Amino acid sequence: MSNAKHIHLVDTTLRDGSHAISHQYTAEQIATIAAGLDQAGVEFIEVSHGDGLAGSSINYGRSAISEEEMLKAASSVIKNATLTVLLIPGIGTQEDLEMAINCGAKAVRVATHVTEADISQQHIAMAKKMGLKAIGFLMLSHMVEPDKVVEQAKLFESYGADVVYVADSAGAMLPEDVKARISAVVDAVNVPVGFHAHNNLTLATANSLAAIEAGATYIDGTCRGLGAGAGNCQIEALVGVLDKKGYHTGIDLYKIMDVAEDLVEPIMHRPQVVRNAPFMLGYAGVYGSFLLHAYRAAEKFNLDPRDILVELGKRKMVGGQEDMIIDVAYQLSKKRGA
Amino acid sequence: MSNAKHIHLVDTTLRDGSHAISHQYTAEQIATIAAGLDQAGVEFIEVSHGDGLAGSSINYGRSAISEEEMLKAASSVIKNATLTVLLIPGIGTQEDLEMAINCGAKAVRVATHVTEADISQQHIAMAKKMGLKAIGFLMLSHMVEPDKVVEQAKLFESYGADVVYVADSAGAMLPEDVKARISAVVDAVNVPVGFHAHNNLTLATANSLAAIEAGATYIDGTCRGLGAGAGNCQIEALVGVLDKKGYHTGIDLYKIMDVAEDLVEPIMHRPQVVRNAPFMLGYAGVYGSFLLHAYRAAEKFNLDPRDILVELGKRKMVGGQEDMIIDVAYQLSKKRGA
Repeated sequence: MSNAKHIHLVDTTLRDGSHAISHQYTAEQIATIAAGLDQAGVEFIEVSHGDGLAGSSINYGRSAISEEEMLKAASSVIKNATLTVLLIPGIGTQEDLEMAINCGAKAVRVATHVTEADISQQHIAMAKKMGLKAIGFLMLSHMVEPDKVVEQAKLFESYGADVVYVADSAGAMLPEDVKARISAVVDAVNVPVGFHAHNNLTLATANSLAAIEAGATYIDGTCRGLGAGAGNCQIEALVGVLDKKGYHTGIDLYKIMDVAEDLVEPIMHRPQVVRNAPFMLGYAGVYGSFLLHAYRAAEKFNLDPRDILVELGKRKMVGGQEDMIIDVAYQLSKKRGA
Repeated sequence: MSNAKHIHLVDTTLRDGSHAISHQYTAEQIATIAAGLDQAGVEFIEVSHGDGLAGSSINYGRSAISEEEMLKAASSVIKNATLTVLLIPGIGTQEDLEMAINCGAKAVRVATHVTEADISQQHIAMAKKMGLKAIGFLMLSHMVEPDKVVEQAKLFESYGADVVYVADSAGAMLPEDVKARISAVVDAVNVPVGFHAHNNLTLATANSLAAIEAGATYIDGTCRGLGAGAGNCQIEALVGVLDKKGYHTGIDLYKIMDVAEDLVEPIMHRPQVVRNAPFMLGYAGVYGSFLLHAYRAAEKFNLDPRDILVELGKRKMVGGQEDMIIDVAYQLSKKRGA
């Protein structure tokens, strides 16, 4: 037996990755990829619409098949992994979670904006009552200081979460930002702490390592980094890097490399590279949904859309405030003219 | 004036990047890209065949145009940057360097295997005599311990090098490997120290940051990470990350992003993603030229080629030892059968 520290890896190719293929996974693709991940030794396999249970809609994009079919496709092939679902309160409901359990889900990640953990109380309690592993997941954690992340993580813990996650949903963090948040949370809670990276600044693997150094023991990734914009942490690369560093993941490196190259890469719609638009979202630290609005406002006021994004990031604007982008652009253009 | 620490960036899109487009840059492409980089404020623009001056050959791949045409195309548009060439002793000669100077080169990087800095003495002396900035460049620095890197860097310094570089040519280093080598060299020499990353382990940006934290002040990159296999450090992302961290590069982030997306991306032959083969080269820490040999030997002995690469890495085999790959495969297969 090795004495190496164990890191729990969560593969979210079949959940967060689905954004990058417009949620068009077929049952066969899900079964094949989930089987491959399971055989490679992946501990947690997350399967849901990209925006979680019941995310399939006109707003968030329709899945090719029902969530029930997705989960059954995965659970029919999984032998060892924990089938995991994502639930965003306000999108997914208690009924959705019951359906997921009936389809074989054993763990749920309840995700909220980093300042809104309180809306997860009922869902986490329900998950625990139903015998699931419950994971609290704080999205866009770069937007607040570490002490606020701690406060919200403690809420999750108080509701009964078995694990709390810090998610860099915009890919906006530098390794020191990750370390500050993870180490503060690790110090403050008695449950394991996880980290979810995005690659907007080309730092997803480095940030995952920074999280582990700061005490995180749960880390997310996707095959080939499949995900919206710049994508996620490339899990097969992370496995190899963790091997080199002497950590234990229980994952067979070659097998997960083969899942990435033979099963996931062929169904990708585009290569997972860091182009300018996703880079700027990470650089500015803003929502993906701001991008189109910023480009439109830039054209109207003859500005560089990147300056608008940076300003939105400085003002820490959040989803739902898209209407104000035009005001910001107007103010910027006045300032330029002055 | 800002008090931020200045980092000198060397863009090698038009040298190391040329491997990834089979050395087929046209004079027009070189002029357009060099002009864009110069206007963006890039300090050093390296232009040469991927294997340095006189690299154009059947062995290393023929360039589309002569090195003279390449350098003239660049120097005709460069207003502020230092036009830099690469010279590998044994490939490039004194005559090649004279040609480069006549075409506007102001700096030369003399590159040797990490244990062979001694073959650079004449070239560095000659470069200094001719008024060039001379940069010693230690390739495949992961293969030896930090004290050996120091010994070789000191040789460069003793020959008159103005800067010494540690290059992770195989993309095999973890951030701690970079820090160990860079800090040892920084402590031992009185000239600035540089670092050249590759992205095989998805750590090129992180390793560049690690080098800077350890005292390096010269860092290489290419637009979109263009380079052989997994590619180089994506320079426009690095510029943004350095901006966020408060370093000064003198480079306009938006302008270099535009060079990457508008000028370099359209001529790339393939997206710069980390597929399995380049990942394994970094993981095993071996030469790219070993790949095909390892796959052939694997087929012959019914092995996974990745196991052969890992074994070659353990044995620290170097270029020129390709013949021994079949022996290694034979020994591995015997061990498996036993």
